Formats: sequence, C-alpha cells, structure tokens
Amino acid sequence: MSNPPSSSRPRIAVIGATGAVGREMLLCLEQWGYGQHPVRAFASPRSAGQQLPFAGRSLTVEVFDDAPTAKWMHQVDFALLAAGSSISKKIASAATSSGVILIDNSSAFRMTPGVPLVVPEINPDHLADLIAKRTAAAKQGSRIGGIIANPNCSTIILLMALTPIHKLATVQRAVVSTYQAASGAGAQGMDELALLTRQALDGNPLTPSFFTEPYAFNLFSHNSQMDVQTGANVEEQKMLDETAKIWASDDVRISATCIRVPVMRAHSESVNITLKSPTTLRDIRLALSSFPGIKIIDDRATNTFPTPLKASGGNDVLIGRLRVDRSQLPDPCATPTDDTPATGFDLFIVGDQLRKGAAQNAVQILAALAPA
Amino acid sequence: MSNPPSSSRPRIAVIGATGAVGREMLLCLEQWGYGQHPVRAFASPRSAGQQLPFAGRSLTVEVFDDAPTAKWMHQVDFALLAAGSSISKKIASAATSSGVILIDNSSAFRMTPGVPLVVPEINPDHLADLIAKRTAAAKQGSRIGGIIANPNCSTIILLMALTPIHKLATVQRAVVSTYQAASGAGAQGMDELALLTRQALDGNPLTPSFFTEPYAFNLFSHNSQMDVQTGANVEEQKMLDETAKIWASDDVRISATCIRVPVMRAHSESVNITLKSPTTLRDIRLALSSFPGIKIIDDRATNTFPTPLKASGGNDVLIGRLRVDRSQLPDPCATPTDDTPATGFDLFIVGDQLRKGAAQNAVQILAALAPA
Repeated sequence: MSNPPSSSRPRIAVIGATGAVGREMLLCLEQWGYGQHPVRAFASPRSAGQQLPFAGRSLTVEVFDDAPTAKWMHQVDFALLAAGSSISKKIASAATSSGVILIDNSSAFRMTPGVPLVVPEINPDHLADLIAKRTAAAKQGSRIGGIIANPNCSTIILLMALTPIHKLATVQRAVVSTYQAASGAGAQGMDELALLTRQALDGNPLTPSFFTEPYAFNLFSHNSQMDVQTGANVEEQKMLDETAKIWASDDVRISATCIRVPVMRAHSESVNITLKSPTTLRDIRLALSSFPGIKIIDDRATNTFPTPLKASGGNDVLIGRLRVDRSQLPDPCATPTDDTPATGFDLFIVGDQLRKGAAQNAVQILAALAPA
Repeated sequence: MSNPPSSSRPRIAVIGATGAVGREMLLCLEQWGYGQHPVRAFASPRSAGQQLPFAGRSLTVEVFDDAPTAKWMHQVDFALLAAGSSISKKIASAATSSGVILIDNSSAFRMTPGVPLVVPEINPDHLADLIAKRTAAAKQGSRIGGIIANPNCSTIILLMALTPIHKLATVQRAVVSTYQAASGAGAQGMDELALLTRQALDGNPLTPSFFTEPYAFNLFSHNSQMDVQTGANVEEQKMLDETAKIWASDDVRISATCIRVPVMRAHSESVNITLKSPTTLRDIRLALSSFPGIKIIDDRATNTFPTPLKASGGNDVLIGRLRVDRSQLPDPCATPTDDTPATGFDLFIVGDQLRKGAAQNAVQILAALAPA
C-alpha cells in the first residue's frame, strides 16, 4: 500500500527528536530551509508532550509508534531516524512499504547491499537510483519508500578530508587515531562526563555508570564492542567498512585507533596518509579548499589549528596541521617545501560529531532528495 | 676547584622542588631508598620557607642561588634539576666545575654532544664513561661533575614501549599521535585545566591565560613553538631527535603529532609501527613482558586497556591495544592470529608524565650512578 504523493512540501518526521542528535536535526532542518515544512517530532513515551522549539514555533513531541500499522507511516514522506539500530530495524519494512524514505542515523542498514551510504559531498551519485525510482513513481501518482544510511560520525569526518586528496592522488593507506567526544555516546555520555568531572573537581569519589571507565580528566579506548580476533572495536571496523562502501573501493587500507576523550562534542582525528602518486602540499591545500564543507585552519606561525570548541555547533569540517610526513621522504632529515613532491602527509581533522557527523549529514541527504 | 668526595651517602639537591616535577622527585627519592640521605630542597624566593614532607620528616625550602659562587655547589653531590632550561644553562658550568653531577629534566643539554641522554632501562651504557671518570677521580680523592639529561616525557614513554620491539625486529618507522596531559605544562597547566573546566560546568565565560586555547572539554595542538618550515612543533621534533640519540641510530623515522588533551596527568600515545623483520604478536608480547618498567593491560574480551587514571601515580608504562595492523598485511581483510608473521603493528601506551616521564626517570639515573 502506498500513499498518494505529498504536496510540494514534503512531510518530515524526526524520530528520537529529544536525543542529542534529534535536537540537532531540528536545528539543521530549520537552517537548511525546512522551517515552514510540516515537521513532526517523535520520541519515547517519557518525552511525550515536551515542547521543542522549531523555526519560531513549538513542536509537541508525539509518542513514537513502532508498530507496522502505525499511522505516521502514511502521513510523512521522510523520516529522519535518530533512535538507535533496534528501532530502525523494527520499522524499516513497514515504513518503506508505506512509501516513507528513511534517512537512518543508526548502523542498522549501513552495510546492507542496496542501501546507499551517503555523504552528499562525496557520493551523491549513490542516491541516483532511488531518485529515479521515486520520480517514476510520482509520475504514476504513487510513491516509493527506501532507506538511506547516514555513515558513522568518525567516518564522515575522516572522509570529508580524505576524499579530495583521494581524488587527487589516491589514498593508498591511512593511519588514524581519533579523539572522540562524549556526544558520540548521546546525551547520557555527555551527562556522565559533566557529572564525573564535577565530582573530580570537588574531590569526591567518581561514580561511573554509563561508561565502564571513569570519564573525568581521563580517556579510554572506544566503548564499542571489540572483535577479540582482530583486536579492532566496532567503531574502528566501521571506519574501514564504511569507507570501502562510500568510496566504492575494495582496496581500502586503514589502521584506526578509536579513543574517547573528555571533550563534550566534536571529534578530532590525527591522520597520516600514504598516497599512490606523489603530490605536493600546495596541491593538497588547493584540492581541500575547493571541496565544499571544509575549512582550513592552519597557521603555523601563530600555532592556530582546529579544535573541538572551534568546530562545535558549526557546519564545516576543520582541517589543519597539514604537512609533509618527513618519515616517508627518501631523506627524513630534509626540509620539504610546499612544492616538494611526496607520497606521505599528516593532517588533523575536527568536526562537530552531532552536526556533520550526524544530523547535518542526514538533512543534507534529505535536501538532495527533496530540496527545501 | 673541586670538593673532596662525599661520605658514603651522596648529598642530593632538588632544584625547583615546589613545582609539579620537583614534588614528584621528592616522592621518588623516598621510594627509591634515598629517604635517609642528606636531601635539600631549593626553589624561587616566593616558595622559600615552605615545608615539604619527605620520608617522615620535613624539608624547609631554601632560596635557590644560581650565581657561579653559590655555596650549594660545594655542598651537594647530585642536583636533580626541575627548574627550566634557562636556570640549567645558567648554573651548568659552575656547578659541574665544582664537582656536582646535574641530572637535568630540562631540554637545555639533551642534544649537546657528550651529554648522555638516558633512560636507564634502555641505554644505561651511555652513563659508563661518566661513571668511569668519577670512579677514577674518587680514587684520587677528588670528584668530577657532569650533566646527564632526562629525555622529554613523551619520548621516554614512547621508547619504553618501542625499545623491546626495536631489539626484536627493528622499528623502521613509527606514526605516533599523542594525548598529552596538563601536567606536561607544570602546575600552571594543571591549575588552568581545573579552573576553566569549572567555569565551563558553571556556564561561565572561559578565561584562558596560560594556554592560548581554552582548556575545558577541549584539546589542541601542543603549545610548543612550531617550525614554520617543517610544520613540526618542538615537542614533535624532540621525539625524533631524542630517539635518534637514545637509540644511537641515524635512521629513525617517526611521524609525530602531539596534542594536548584535557587530562590532568599521564600521557597517552597511539602508535603504529612498521618493522624491518617480520615478527609475531606473541613474540612482541614476550619481548614487552620481559622488559622492566612495563605493564601490559590488554584484555580484548572486557575492553580493558591502559588509561591515564590507571597510570597516574604509578611507576610503570602501561601498554595495550596490541594488534597486528591489517592495513600492512598483504591481504588487509585477513584475520591474523597471534602467530601470523607481520611487519605492521598497533599499540596504545600510557605513562605518568610526572613519574616515568620526568621525576622517576631522573631518580633512576641517580640510582644508576649512586645506588641508595
């Protein structure tokens, strides 16, 4: 069963609207020009009735119904999902059969064949098939549902920086160490960081409950599950697998080490790359400068580089500490210039995990399908 | 002019005794068996008269005299210096001429030819020449001064982990990203982290004064000066230069990215290595296990790995996240075992910056010269 196509303004649902990502989705919808669209906010029963500010008005949070017979499936065109994998899996079949396009921030369908995994600046072409089918259906007075997956936050931020370089000279291998913020674990992670930090400052005992390691002036290996065979945790494996899918490449080589640091929001990544073809720092800067969604902050003389606070609440992925990796030069003691051809480079990347790492990317996918 | 050799118990001065490193030096002296030795504590005039607890007694802080005619130069045998490069440079000539051995935690003489740069577990042989000269002088009833430099904290911590692996299979190249604590910038750095973090938690404006970047739930590129040509800051260059000197190797290849994170004390380092000869994870674990001063914390099943809080106040360098770097395997999708020969590995290292990164290493150097 499918609904008739909606009027000119697509109807949008934000599912998980009161969570850390959901709230940012509403901000991004407003910022991307969806302020006057019919937007509904859904969350679990304990948040029902809450008022969320949106584009000068107020949205009343509705209880989310995840049953296959749920009414909303026939009343919205796009659902931005920020409610976790299990809910995404539960509703996917019924919602898409009803003609809803799910833009899913969870990991539920990212690696499912046929489900596009999209960063609009990088692989908008992966949406082409779905767009064509919807257009054809609309001509026949019906609509077609589907799923588009939002990649993992640390993958999005990494690829925003690496893709222009990859296009320039092919990234053969990358060594990535992350500095991931509390926001990646949602509001509970941020609350625990604040609570335990205050306990530490007051000289009180630390009472971790959400993370197993005490999260006050302390960092720890990412809390996702680890593959005991490879020694990679899920966050690290995602970086590898999702990059391969987004780049449509079967030869991605990434060594990733994912670490949670006591930062509130915005992930940082220290990245060392090896390129297939020699290029110069000048050409890398040019390639990055002409790529949308990137801002270079890289002033060696004043030690001014990207930081999480500079990235927080912003839309751009910040890039700095750009330099030739002398350890990959024939003579590691040489002093390279901006025009020295090299295959090894270092860079430091910071992006707001809740924005480009999640909500903003989802709204950009929406904009690619249904411009505001 | 030189003093007669001291009695059986060498007389020790701690210079900069009220600073973050100086206080740890007193703790380490006590721990390493120097509690009953004649120990004097020196600091700047504003700390004079302070009482510092030491081995069940109390040391009265004396004003440090940095003049070439200073009396202390004829009254102590060993001076542990934790007062900054400029003071080290100012007193070095007169103090060593007077027969004092300076164990210097500053960077003043680390790269000076002829000055040993020592991590006792790694290159105790670099002390042999000085020990021989002192022994010969003592036989003639005199004493010989000298300088031994304590390496930079992040270098010590890195090399504690890499040296056993280097001996096993030669580290050809390392990519290092650091997560450095406030303590590396001394008490002022730690105070600023505490102050600004409280401001952030209370919703007040942040007032950075010591660091240029706001240090509350935020991280930034290391605050040391940057070489605008290479793009490496001093901290990163130290890691390269000091490793070459400690390992006595002219072919050290390290890509270092040094980042200050909002952790109070204990530095962490994410390290990716490429070895000259293939080896196995099992052999790396064995080599690390039999090296003194190292503790392996590496339980994949329970996600238990080194953290700064686990390392703080302890003497060991903690190592975990040990794994084969699949990106350096012929087939990056293979699942290596503990016995798969490989040349690429990852590890995560944490060490107390004030202990093994500074005070403890200095006291271990003292112990190598004058066992308690």
